[in-house]
Amino acid sequence: MKLDELISKIKWNDQGLVPAIAQDEDTKEVLMMAWMNEEALRMTVATRKATYYSRSRQKLWIKGETSGNVQELKGLFVDCDTDTLLITVKPAGPACHTGQKTCFYTEISL
Amino acid sequence: MKLDELISKIKWNDQGLVPAIAQDEDTKEVLMMAWMNEEALRMTVATRKATYYSRSRQKLWIKGETSGNVQELKGLFVDCDTDTLLITVKPAGPACHTGQKTCFYTEISL
Repeated sequence: MKLDELISKIKWNDQGLVPAIAQDEDTKEVLMMAWMNEEALRMTVATRKATYYSRSRQKLWIKGETSGNVQELKGLFVDCDTDTLLITVKPAGPACHTGQKTCFYTEISL
Repeated sequence: MKLDELISKIKWNDQGLVPAIAQDEDTKEVLMMAWMNEEALRMTVATRKATYYSRSRQKLWIKGETSGNVQELKGLFVDCDTDTLLITVKPAGPACHTGQKTCFYTEISL
């Protein structure tokens, strides 16, 4: 699928956003989940750097812009009902602001 | 972290839901993303079978209840800002209703 077709098919939520899951291309770890609007998605593809939309700051957020921990885009996938994106990335450093490699470092005991 | 602590800390959205990413424990493939409310999360842990909340049908949805393609719960993680869950599962069959192993089978050309 091409990007323009994807953008026309995505079921954006009522805020114009879609969830995007970032996965390490090599280790397959799930690194984080954040949100993209159309501009963030287009920038991610154009620059090959994961760019999200910060709901708290209400603006685009180039991952790693200040920390240097950019996520180089390697692959882009959409799910069967076109309401969630999966990106595979090569991270330059930890995904998490805490310094952990993945944001999902807290395990719940079962 | 214990389940009750998790439930008290989760930032449920305004519909009382949290996104849950399901990952194959063995292959590390990201299988799907769906939503859970508190009841779905408690049932997932109690039954060890991934249970989601269907926003379209507005009711609990035991994954694989009709298809047999249940997802056996193996691990449960929460992200650093406690607004997204990651579950690792052992799937009995395809995650996707199309018969594909993962719902993210559509790749976008970069």
